[in-house]
Amino acid sequence: MMKLSRSLLSRRLCSQTMLSGKWVDVGDALCSRAFESPAAFSTSVHDFSAKGISNARVFAPYTVYKGKAAFSVSPLLPTFSKIDSGSASLKVDRRGCMMLTFWPAVGERKYDWEKRQKFALSPTEVGSLISMGAHDGSEFFHDPSMKSSNAGQVSKKLYIKALDGGNGYMISLTVTNNILKSNERFNVPLTTAEFAVLKTACSFALPHIIGWDWLINQSRNDMAGSPSKVNPQLLDLEWDK
Amino acid sequence: MMKLSRSLLSRRLCSQTMLSGKWVDVGDALCSRAFESPAAFSTSVHDFSAKGISNARVFAPYTVYKGKAAFSVSPLLPTFSKIDSGSASLKVDRRGCMMLTFWPAVGERKYDWEKRQKFALSPTEVGSLISMGAHDGSEFFHDPSMKSSNAGQVSKKLYIKALDGGNGYMISLTVTNNILKSNERFNVPLTTAEFAVLKTACSFALPHIIGWDWLINQSRNDMAGSPSKVNPQLLDLEWDK
Amino acid sequence: MMKLSRSLLSRRLCSQTMLSGKWVDVGDALCSRAFESPAAFSTSVHDFSAKGISNARVFAPYTVYKGKAAFSVSPLLPTFSKIDSGSASLKVDRRGCMMLTFWPAVGERKYDWEKRQKFALSPTEVGSLISMGAHDGSEFFHDPSMKSSNAGQVSKKLYIKALDGGNGYMISLTVTNNILKSNERFNVPLTTAEFAVLKTACSFALPHIIGWDWLINQSRNDMAGSPSKVNPQLLDLEWDK
Amino acid sequence: MMKLSRSLLSRRLCSQTMLSGKWVDVGDALCSRAFESPAAFSTSVHDFSAKGISNARVFAPYTVYKGKAAFSVSPLLPTFSKIDSGSASLKVDRRGCMMLTFWPAVGERKYDWEKRQKFALSPTEVGSLISMGAHDGSEFFHDPSMKSSNAGQVSKKLYIKALDGGNGYMISLTVTNNILKSNERFNVPLTTAEFAVLKTACSFALPHIIGWDWLINQSRNDMAGSPSKVNPQLLDLEWDK
Repeated sequence: MMKLSRSLLSRRLCSQTMLSGKWVDVGDALCSRAFESPAAFSTSVHDFSAKGISNARVFAPYTVYKGKAAFSVSPLLPTFSKIDSGSASLKVDRRGCMMLTFWPAVGERKYDWEKRQKFALSPTEVGSLISMGAHDGSEFFHDPSMKSSNAGQVSKKLYIKALDGGNGYMISLTVTNNILKSNERFNVPLTTAEFAVLKTACSFALPHIIGWDWLINQSRNDMAGSPSKVNPQLLDLEWDK
Repeated sequence: MMKLSRSLLSRRLCSQTMLSGKWVDVGDALCSRAFESPAAFSTSVHDFSAKGISNARVFAPYTVYKGKAAFSVSPLLPTFSKIDSGSASLKVDRRGCMMLTFWPAVGERKYDWEKRQKFALSPTEVGSLISMGAHDGSEFFHDPSMKSSNAGQVSKKLYIKALDGGNGYMISLTVTNNILKSNERFNVPLTTAEFAVLKTACSFALPHIIGWDWLINQSRNDMAGSPSKVNPQLLDLEWDK
Repeated sequence: MMKLSRSLLSRRLCSQTMLSGKWVDVGDALCSRAFESPAAFSTSVHDFSAKGISNARVFAPYTVYKGKAAFSVSPLLPTFSKIDSGSASLKVDRRGCMMLTFWPAVGERKYDWEKRQKFALSPTEVGSLISMGAHDGSEFFHDPSMKSSNAGQVSKKLYIKALDGGNGYMISLTVTNNILKSNERFNVPLTTAEFAVLKTACSFALPHIIGWDWLINQSRNDMAGSPSKVNPQLLDLEWDK
Repeated sequence: MMKLSRSLLSRRLCSQTMLSGKWVDVGDALCSRAFESPAAFSTSVHDFSAKGISNARVFAPYTVYKGKAAFSVSPLLPTFSKIDSGSASLKVDRRGCMMLTFWPAVGERKYDWEKRQKFALSPTEVGSLISMGAHDGSEFFHDPSMKSSNAGQVSKKLYIKALDGGNGYMISLTVTNNILKSNERFNVPLTTAEFAVLKTACSFALPHIIGWDWLINQSRNDMAGSPSKVNPQLLDLEWDK
C-alpha cells in the first residue's frame, strides 16, 4: 500500500508547476500521462484488445458551432487496475477527465475537423469551471512535455471568461508550438444557456471521472450479500490505529 | 470520421436561423428531423420492429392542470446507431429532448387531449430553462418546415416568463398555422414549487438526453475488464497529434 | 389513450381543493388514494403476492432525534401497470412521494413509535421544499377523506419555517381529528446542516418518485438494440399532427 | 419493528454530547461504532468472508497534496442486514460516511502515509459541509471512546473555514491523545476549485451514504413485476392508522 501511495503521489505532483506567481494545475498527470506519446497510447490500446473488450463504446459529445470555431465536450472515464492483495480490489489507474475539443471554421458553416486541438480538464479544473459565477474567469495551462527536456516546446492555454453584460462566456484555447513556430487560437462564445448545459453536464460527470462510479455500481449487487467496500488491508478506519 | 462529423454538422447547422435580430435555436434538428413527416417516422418505427424491441416503454410525464390548459413534460432519450469501424462503437443518431405537451381546458376540470400541441426542447434550450433566475424570461421559436419550400407555414413559439412578484412563472405556447389560418395559444401559470420540479427534473434529465447515459451504463460492466471508452479511431487525445 | 388520460386526469384533479383563499395541493391523489382504506391497501398487497415479488425491500430513512419529537424521511417509489396496447408499455399507476414520519418524545431520549403520524409529500410539495430560501416558509394541508362524506373529520397540516437568525428551520405537523376531538402537534427544529441533507436527499429522490427511473433503467439495456422510448400509439411527437 | 427502532435510536443518541455550549454531532455512532476496536472490526471482516463476497472493491479517493499535508476524501457505503420478517427486507446496519484522511508532509513533495489520521463525516456533517457559503465555517468534534470509561482520552476536531478574501478554504484536523500526550495537527488549504470538487462529490455521495441506493437499484428490476417498496409490516402509510 505504501508503494501504491508513493507511486500515485509522484505522478500527481509532477503535474504542478509555478506559473505567473501562482500554482496552476498543469493537466492531470494521471489523465494525460498515457497520452504523451502515440507509442504509450497504442500499448494501452493493445492491452484493451488483449482483454477482449466487447462493450460498446459510445460517442455523445455536447457540441456547439459558432462563427469562427466549433467546440465539444465529452467525459473520459478513469481506468482501473487490480491490486495484488488476494482480494478483488481495484484502484484508479488513469484518472478521468473532461475532454474539450476545438476545431476551426474554414468558411460559412464549414469546419475543419483535421485541425482540431484537445484540452483535457482534470477533476480539479472541472471544479473550477462549475464554481464560476456570472462575472468570473478561469485559466488553465498545460505543458505536455513538462519535466522532460522538451518542456516548454508546446503549451496550451485555456481561458474561460464571462462576457460583459453577463449574458454568456468566451472560451478560448491557445496552442503554442515553439518548434513549429505556430500559434493557434480558437475563440468560441457560449450563450448563458450553452454554459448552463456545460456546467450541468460537467457536474453530472465529475463523480464519474474521479471514479466514484462504484457508488452506483455497488447498488447493482445484492446489498445483503455485499455489505461493505471496506478492505482492512488498504483502507483503515477512523479509530483503527 | 471526417464523413461522420460533416454529416452531423450539416444537420445541426440547419436548425439555426436568424430571428428578430438574434440567432435562435430552432428546435433540434437531430431531434425533430425524424418527425417532420408521418412517412419518415413510420420508417423509423418499422426499423424498431425489425430490431425486435422487447424493452418496456415507460410513460411517466410530470403534469400540471390549470384553469385554461394542462401542461406535461417528459424526457425523450436519444437513439444510437453503430459505427462501422470493426468495434462495437455507437454514436448518437437522434439527439434526445424534453417533450412539452399542452392541451386545452374545455370546461371545468375537463381537458381535450385531442387538441394537444407539442414542443421539443433541445439540450441547449433546456440549459436556458434551468439557468433562469426568479425574474428572467426565455423564448424559443421552432419552424417544422424550415429550409423547405413550406418554411413559415407553421410556427411554434414558447415563452417562459417570471410572474410579477416573483411567485411563479407563466409558460405559453403559440402555434400559428398560416395555411389553416389558425392560431392556438396555451397559457399555463406555474407556481414556484411546480417550476422547481420542472427545473430539478430537467437538470436530472439533461445528461441523459445528450446521451451521457453511458457514464452510468459503463459502471455496470466489470470495471477491471473494460478500462476505457477510448477508441483511437474516433476520439483522439489531448497530446495525440 | 384517451381513456387513460381522462382517468389519470380525474384522479389528479380530485386532490385539489380551495383552502384559505388559495389552491393547495391536498396530498397526491395518485399517491394517497391507495391508502385511503386498509381494504384498498390489502388488495394492493395481495396483488404484490400474486406477482411473486422476490426483490428485497430496503428501509433507510434519514432520521433526526430532537427534544420533543423525532422525524424521518424516506422516498416511496411509484408503481407501474401495463398498458393494454400489445406492446410492453408501462404507465405510472400510483405516483411516488416523500414519506415524512413524526413520533413524540416520552422522556429523556425516549420516543414512542406507536404514536407516529405520517405525511406524504407529493412531487410538487417536494418542489416547494427544495426551492425554499433561508428565510422562507411552506405549509401543506392534507385531508384523507376529501370528497367523501367524512371530509373535514381528520386533517393534517405541515409547516416548514425558517428560524429567526437564519440558522435552521422548524418543521411541524399538526393532526386534528374532529371525531376523537384530538389534536396532536409535533415540532422538530432542524439545523441548517440537517435541512441541507433533507433538501439534497429530496432533490436526488424527486426524479425517482415521479417515475423517471426509466432514464437510468434504459441505460442498462443494449443501447443499439433499443433505440427509443417512442411509442407512436401513445406518445405523439412535436410535428406529428 | 418497535425493537428495531429503539435499537437504532439508542445507538444514534449516544453519538451526541454537549460541547462548548452547543450540541455537536460526535461522529456517527452507526458509522464509527463498528470501528471502536480492532476486535469488533475483525469480526465484521470475518462476516464478510463467511458470506463469500466476490465483488470487487474500488479505491478512488479524491486527493489533494499541499505544502504541509495531503488530504483525501472517499465515500464509505452503509451496510445492510436482513429483517426477520419472512420477506426479503433489508435495514441499514451501519450508516455510511465520507471518510477524510490526512497525512503529513515530511519533506519537499514527500508525505508519510504511516502517520495518517482519519475523520468520518456523518451524513448530517456532510450536510453542514455542502451548505457552507463562501464566508462560512464549520467545526466537528469526535470522541472515539465516548460513553466508556476512556471518554476524553482521545479527541478529534475538524475545522473548515473560508479563507480571507473568499478564494478558498482551510481544512484542519487536530488529534489530541491525552494518554500519549500527543497533539497532531494537519492544515490543508483548499482552492475554490478543490472545494467545489469536494462539495459536488459529497452532494453526489450523500444519498448513497444514507442508503438510498435502492432508488437506483430498484430501477434495475422489472418495473411491472415489482410495483412497490411498501411492506405493510414495517412501513405504515399516511392514512393507515
